[in-house]
Amino acid sequence: MFVRNAWYCAGWNYEVTQGRDNLVAREIAGERVVLYRKPSGEIVALEDRCPHRQAALSRGRKEGDSLRCMYHGMKFAADGACTEIPGQSVIPERACVRAFPVVEKDDWIWVWMGDAAKADPKLICFAVGPSHPDWVIRTSKMRVNCNYRLEIANLADLSHLAWVHENTVGGSRKYPEAKPQHTLTPRGMNSFFWVRQVPPTAAVAHLFAEGTLFDLRFEIQMTVPCNWIMHFTIYTAGTATEGDSNGQLVADTYTCQAVTPRDADSVDYYYSWGASRATEFPGLSDMLRDTLNIAFREDADVLEAQHIRVKERPHLKTIDIALDAGPGKMLWVLDKLLKEEGEPRTVAA
Amino acid sequence: MFVRNAWYCAGWNYEVTQGRDNLVAREIAGERVVLYRKPSGEIVALEDRCPHRQAALSRGRKEGDSLRCMYHGMKFAADGACTEIPGQSVIPERACVRAFPVVEKDDWIWVWMGDAAKADPKLICFAVGPSHPDWVIRTSKMRVNCNYRLEIANLADLSHLAWVHENTVGGSRKYPEAKPQHTLTPRGMNSFFWVRQVPPTAAVAHLFAEGTLFDLRFEIQMTVPCNWIMHFTIYTAGTATEGDSNGQLVADTYTCQAVTPRDADSVDYYYSWGASRATEFPGLSDMLRDTLNIAFREDADVLEAQHIRVKERPHLKTIDIALDAGPGKMLWVLDKLLKEEGEPRTVAA
Amino acid sequence: MFVRNAWYCAGWNYEVTQGRDNLVAREIAGERVVLYRKPSGEIVALEDRCPHRQAALSRGRKEGDSLRCMYHGMKFAADGACTEIPGQSVIPERACVRAFPVVEKDDWIWVWMGDAAKADPKLICFAVGPSHPDWVIRTSKMRVNCNYRLEIANLADLSHLAWVHENTVGGSRKYPEAKPQHTLTPRGMNSFFWVRQVPPTAAVAHLFAEGTLFDLRFEIQMTVPCNWIMHFTIYTAGTATEGDSNGQLVADTYTCQAVTPRDADSVDYYYSWGASRATEFPGLSDMLRDTLNIAFREDADVLEAQHIRVKERPHLKTIDIALDAGPGKMLWVLDKLLKEEGEPRTVAA
Repeated sequence: MFVRNAWYCAGWNYEVTQGRDNLVAREIAGERVVLYRKPSGEIVALEDRCPHRQAALSRGRKEGDSLRCMYHGMKFAADGACTEIPGQSVIPERACVRAFPVVEKDDWIWVWMGDAAKADPKLICFAVGPSHPDWVIRTSKMRVNCNYRLEIANLADLSHLAWVHENTVGGSRKYPEAKPQHTLTPRGMNSFFWVRQVPPTAAVAHLFAEGTLFDLRFEIQMTVPCNWIMHFTIYTAGTATEGDSNGQLVADTYTCQAVTPRDADSVDYYYSWGASRATEFPGLSDMLRDTLNIAFREDADVLEAQHIRVKERPHLKTIDIALDAGPGKMLWVLDKLLKEEGEPRTVAA
Repeated sequence: MFVRNAWYCAGWNYEVTQGRDNLVAREIAGERVVLYRKPSGEIVALEDRCPHRQAALSRGRKEGDSLRCMYHGMKFAADGACTEIPGQSVIPERACVRAFPVVEKDDWIWVWMGDAAKADPKLICFAVGPSHPDWVIRTSKMRVNCNYRLEIANLADLSHLAWVHENTVGGSRKYPEAKPQHTLTPRGMNSFFWVRQVPPTAAVAHLFAEGTLFDLRFEIQMTVPCNWIMHFTIYTAGTATEGDSNGQLVADTYTCQAVTPRDADSVDYYYSWGASRATEFPGLSDMLRDTLNIAFREDADVLEAQHIRVKERPHLKTIDIALDAGPGKMLWVLDKLLKEEGEPRTVAA
Repeated sequence: MFVRNAWYCAGWNYEVTQGRDNLVAREIAGERVVLYRKPSGEIVALEDRCPHRQAALSRGRKEGDSLRCMYHGMKFAADGACTEIPGQSVIPERACVRAFPVVEKDDWIWVWMGDAAKADPKLICFAVGPSHPDWVIRTSKMRVNCNYRLEIANLADLSHLAWVHENTVGGSRKYPEAKPQHTLTPRGMNSFFWVRQVPPTAAVAHLFAEGTLFDLRFEIQMTVPCNWIMHFTIYTAGTATEGDSNGQLVADTYTCQAVTPRDADSVDYYYSWGASRATEFPGLSDMLRDTLNIAFREDADVLEAQHIRVKERPHLKTIDIALDAGPGKMLWVLDKLLKEEGEPRTVAA
């Protein structure tokens, strides 16, 4: 179901504060995780399950670097070792809670769900966070009730912009005609394509004179489990329709998206969008983020209805189409990693 | 669980309009069905499940006679054949969606859930719809969370009017004393009985002088899955208590009811009631329909509590009583048809 | 899962009134029970499931000492025997509903869920109810969504007052240091301990001068399934810290608590608290009850989160600590009784 040896996004770093009661409970790849920040600022990720009787540590109390379970008072250090059991002096070795490797990078929190010895920070995906000095990035998040494989298939094929996002960030019939170059990477796929001579999308059409056309450049890096980073650049349409645009740069943007599976039936979706400082103008990056909030609800409606149907008929023989090239490649990478870890392939999409 | 080769009511015909976004999603006998109306007025019923990746076609878009899936843009003709796959020119033969035979009759929409070759419109049950010139029929609908077999048992024995509908459309102890004649038909059962010398029910008692008594004539046609058509006639009570009433006609009414199973745990109930144009007076048929809205909520409360208990103890050995004659006959017909189709008999009531 | 041969609390006796429509539906140890009061005042407990087709008798009608099912009108005497089946004169012997032995005692209603021949009222637990002339007892109730074994473990070890109830009825680190004497009884466990030299809890601190200290005396009788009676006495702290307090009596109180499992995932919790008439002062007993309403919501939050986690990992190997002595003993008694009745031991804590 889930790749274990992978970094999973556990949210925006500003969600985990120094607040006394700020204990953040997450479900990540079928595990319960509690996040908190030590006085030093370092983030801790522990299994949200007391080893005594499975009480929720996320209902506990921060005490310095430690976390105390507020059911029977057992206290755990940031490495998961139990340092106190009220009512007794001996602490059994087994009285520890699992600690997950955790890294903050590009304003995201990354948690490694597998073998800690293999937790190489270099495997964390590239992203452009809101703290980056050269970009004006705005952030958001959303819960979607579907299996994360449906999100992978959604993000690995942007032809759906023509239909799902007809009234927001897409609409052109040129999306399904684009021929993305998909290049496999060790843990994902890069995609690159242009969509040329398209009018502005519904969400921004009010900003431009009628008849304005654009060349759009899409450069995407996708990695397991479902991280999706897009460098998206807008030019006024040029005359050359092959090769690089010869149009004028309108906006240079990054949208960074991490879809974290919670369980088989839901995901947490952390995403951002924003323009380069050079092309930002007042309100632009805020508008981009707000537009994603609407557009991703359009995706969610589609994916949640699809998820219900896939669960009803998990073994239905579906048909493949040419546009499945991207999803097929990305799911192939995922399945390869799952197989390497000995996970059975799931039937869902 | 469900007879396949049968016409199932999919709703009132006025629910499926020419509106641009009017795509009606139903669950019928365990299948997802999307209904829409072609510009010609003809209704189409397709499986609400794109053959590509099970997206909901009911979130799609009407395009002339066709329906476009608004996930990846696949377009389906009214017969379910795929006529367009964006991004490719070849359309595989398997890229089609199931089309269900559909008929409009008596203001109801009927969908055939089995082998299309056997979809004989003559098997559609008799009914008197709101468009009938001789009757003033008012319509309604309700969702009930129970298995449809419980609805069959409910409708095949009206003795429950004495108890369930004590404060609305029943109440007399004479109901359980009536001796209905139940006659099997190839796909159901006809029932006929009189209930004589009864006071008006609670719902209409305010309309009559105290002490008024009636003879009530019940003539019912019930067919699979759970269609129930009653010609119900009210006379001032006569002196002859055998044979036809010698009383004066007070109201001549039809109530037409179609209970469509959605899945094992819920039904959609489409129903109507109204008087003949000859016996209608202002407000009568509206009142009858409103009364059913209340009375069927009484049934729903009973059936939903029963359904919960039957699911808790599906194998409980229950006892049979004389009043089970009607339910027993109708369920026998259903089980015979299920057996002919190779469906295992369910344990639920 | 549940001990059959035991008295289960079915609620406060004032919940079952002489009201015409007062039919109280309960789930007790996996069974559906309907309670009503005969004109004589005696309470009847029948299975809430008509033997005909499992309709809910709790939607029925009281008729003298009897209960009529309001689906098909079958009438049952207080002993469960069917006395009328509308539409027929012969009543099959099997047409009866299970009647449960029922006793009112100390303002609680007790129902015996096992073999009626073994229903010895002497097995009903000791309690001090609101009608007791010497005590001013206030009552309440709550639904909690957890397995009752988690409630047993919660009540059999009060060290959690230090943590769970830090801001209400506990908070002192002396709770986990107390060494309760647990004494097994045939169907439960008695516990006794002092907690000395503690400041008032957060809920009552406003009533006392700063620096005030108390000696607290806990005397608890716990019985299956999860009845918990505590004689709780508060003294101003004395100088002697062993043996009985030599302090001055501040309040002498009883709190009586019955946790009744509904099914594997929820309990009904009936509880009271109040002071002796000798130590009561205006508002005291009301305040005690109100405090429990808040404190037991604190427990419920902990137990419901724990229950979710235990269901996720029912076979997780947990660790035992010294404070498990009480829970271990009480669950041992429960498991012994379950084993005697041939019930498999559940995995849940």
